[in-house]
Amino acid sequence: MADIVVGVIGFGTVGTGVVKILLNNRSMLEQRTGCRVELKRIVDLDTTTDRGVSVPNGMLTDTISTILDDNEINTVVELIGGENPAKKFIEAALTAGKNVITSNKEVIAKHGKAFTAIAKKHGCTILYEAAVGGGIPVLHAIRNSLSANKIEKVFGIVNGTTNFILSKMSETGADFGETLKEAQALGYAEANPENDVEGYDARYKLAILASLAFRCTVNYKDIYCEGITNISSEDIEAANQFGYAIKMLAMGINHKDAIQLRVHPVMVEKEHPLATVGDAFNAIYIQGDSLGESMLYGRGAGELPTASAVVGDIMNLAFRNDSAFSRDTDFALNERKIMSINDCFTSFFIRCIVDDAPGVLAKIANIFAKNEVSIQGLQQIDADAGTATITIITHQVKEEKMRSALKEIEGLSSVQKIASVIRVGFGDETL
Amino acid sequence: MADIVVGVIGFGTVGTGVVKILLNNRSMLEQRTGCRVELKRIVDLDTTTDRGVSVPNGMLTDTISTILDDNEINTVVELIGGENPAKKFIEAALTAGKNVITSNKEVIAKHGKAFTAIAKKHGCTILYEAAVGGGIPVLHAIRNSLSANKIEKVFGIVNGTTNFILSKMSETGADFGETLKEAQALGYAEANPENDVEGYDARYKLAILASLAFRCTVNYKDIYCEGITNISSEDIEAANQFGYAIKMLAMGINHKDAIQLRVHPVMVEKEHPLATVGDAFNAIYIQGDSLGESMLYGRGAGELPTASAVVGDIMNLAFRNDSAFSRDTDFALNERKIMSINDCFTSFFIRCIVDDAPGVLAKIANIFAKNEVSIQGLQQIDADAGTATITIITHQVKEEKMRSALKEIEGLSSVQKIASVIRVGFGDETL
Repeated sequence: MADIVVGVIGFGTVGTGVVKILLNNRSMLEQRTGCRVELKRIVDLDTTTDRGVSVPNGMLTDTISTILDDNEINTVVELIGGENPAKKFIEAALTAGKNVITSNKEVIAKHGKAFTAIAKKHGCTILYEAAVGGGIPVLHAIRNSLSANKIEKVFGIVNGTTNFILSKMSETGADFGETLKEAQALGYAEANPENDVEGYDARYKLAILASLAFRCTVNYKDIYCEGITNISSEDIEAANQFGYAIKMLAMGINHKDAIQLRVHPVMVEKEHPLATVGDAFNAIYIQGDSLGESMLYGRGAGELPTASAVVGDIMNLAFRNDSAFSRDTDFALNERKIMSINDCFTSFFIRCIVDDAPGVLAKIANIFAKNEVSIQGLQQIDADAGTATITIITHQVKEEKMRSALKEIEGLSSVQKIASVIRVGFGDETL
Repeated sequence: MADIVVGVIGFGTVGTGVVKILLNNRSMLEQRTGCRVELKRIVDLDTTTDRGVSVPNGMLTDTISTILDDNEINTVVELIGGENPAKKFIEAALTAGKNVITSNKEVIAKHGKAFTAIAKKHGCTILYEAAVGGGIPVLHAIRNSLSANKIEKVFGIVNGTTNFILSKMSETGADFGETLKEAQALGYAEANPENDVEGYDARYKLAILASLAFRCTVNYKDIYCEGITNISSEDIEAANQFGYAIKMLAMGINHKDAIQLRVHPVMVEKEHPLATVGDAFNAIYIQGDSLGESMLYGRGAGELPTASAVVGDIMNLAFRNDSAFSRDTDFALNERKIMSINDCFTSFFIRCIVDDAPGVLAKIANIFAKNEVSIQGLQQIDADAGTATITIITHQVKEEKMRSALKEIEGLSSVQKIASVIRVGFGDETL
């Protein structure tokens, strides 16, 4: 193995972790890879802030060309995040024949296929383990040890912020808004939390996971996406009573003729391993045709866990067989049809606030029956002021039938509002 | 990558799974590796039983030389299990320069280091992912993606039989003997269950896990080992009341100057991810200095899950960089001191059956105090016939102090018997 000479772009949280590992554990890394693993350069616009790690004089600059134009640097670690200018830097590095390691889910979800083509052309590679599941080596497992499997299902808790919020809501009984504030105070959620709570972050990650697991190219825009902002403490409590935990899932199901891809909150049976993933942890549940059920669990974010995955990718550059990997099957050309959400089958939890008057329940039941929605469980609780709450769990039903039923129910004069519509279980009605 | 031409020794449960995958998924395997992946020969003493897979004429023989003496076969899959004659076949294959893949934990725990040396000498490799955790790619993860970490702790539920029995006991309230019979009827336990229920199987697996995770050579005989045959339904119930699940764990802790290795039942806090691993599932919890906490979960046994790991190893032969792997750091020469169980610190759960007489509790408390055992929780339940049950949970204490206390307590005339001694939590008092 040739030596690995590294340039790190982006000296933020994860960058600091990577630099710490490369500087402090260098002899261990070199013993394990059998080659020199040298951090030569760090580039960041901010060259003055103390990051709590002592960097040799001259290593940190604000000039990107000190990495991109340095022929000795053969491995570029991109950790600035976001689409631009990361895309430009990655393209330039690959075009110069440098291997690229990145934790940037957005740029990989959007341009992974193009990057893979550039890498192939210039005899180098792009790896991005840290982009999905932080420290959890899920992409490497899918590419390597699990590659004897046809992967049938991938269900991930891939966003720590939403898992933290939903877990906290479940523990404390607090509502979404309150818990979001707590998450922001603790640094688990950003000032503008949209990217996490609306599911956009999870959608990028699912695009990457599904591309590798199902060996096709997924456009992240084709993934159905629904956030957690409407989940209320009442929903969490009702889920709990029915034996479920509410989790934000990124889900891929590999059908014969198409794939299902969706990001939305799910009521997960408490006995399922995904239900027990608490705090800001991530977990990816994989079902393979030989493997059966399996799950990888760990820290999805944070300085050192994410850095562990980045440096793991650097190590894997030394361990892997370039001739095998140069065939790079990531973002393969296989065309797979992505199912419309309207054609997906799941069970639903519905919570309606209705007038406490005779006949309302019958009307709702009739509308469900007309739309072929079969009811699995139902509960009516009468409140004080002439209103009642009806909660319903349905059997699996095609989404479009549910939507049409809900539209009719919403139109009933005795229905004040449909307070919640949450999918229950994973939905696996085969096509 | 050169072509992979496979000979399978042992056409039992896992062998059948491997043959199914190699024959039925051949085109997928070849697409993914970019090379020919051909099953050429299967050897088993029984060449007549129908295994439910159609094998080409002449592929199955009872003659081991048709594999070992065939120069075209470069990859030998050993699936007969046990020490002999597996050892002889593996040595012969490696000496002939053939790569070896095995699921045989006993032969690897006993001879892994010698095999690694032979492989190195003859320019080939031995891989044994399926030996630990069945379909869970834990060894590959430790060797590759997690290799930027110093692994601090490895705690595994690595024996499906004991996890099935303990999980069932917890669900049904039945006792050990009864549940063992059920496990035997279901095929989860063997007619002679000793290897599983006494922890010998888990001990082999911990020797392998620890050798890789802590980069040293572990003699399995040096691992403290205690089975689950003394766990009663009363223990399970008491654990439940205190907020614990009883799990059979294989535990490794990497201290600065030594390593702790032990296999025994543990009361695990219900909130810990290991506590929720039910049925015959396996899980390996890993704590790394960068990674933090992580867990890999899946099926630890069975035809196809184990075969998935075996074929995954075959795939990894194609994916890996031989020059990096020929340094083979498995079973490294690093000498690590293994701590005596007497020097380990853990909390304990103790259940004593005593005479229902004044002063018994005081005597027990005095003995604990004298031996520096600090009590965390205590419960006395008076029974009918002049006897009482005292359950105690202690703070962390050095094992030898606990043993000396227990010996004294056992000697008290008012103590009828010490019914249970179970370690609580993982014990992580640093040296």
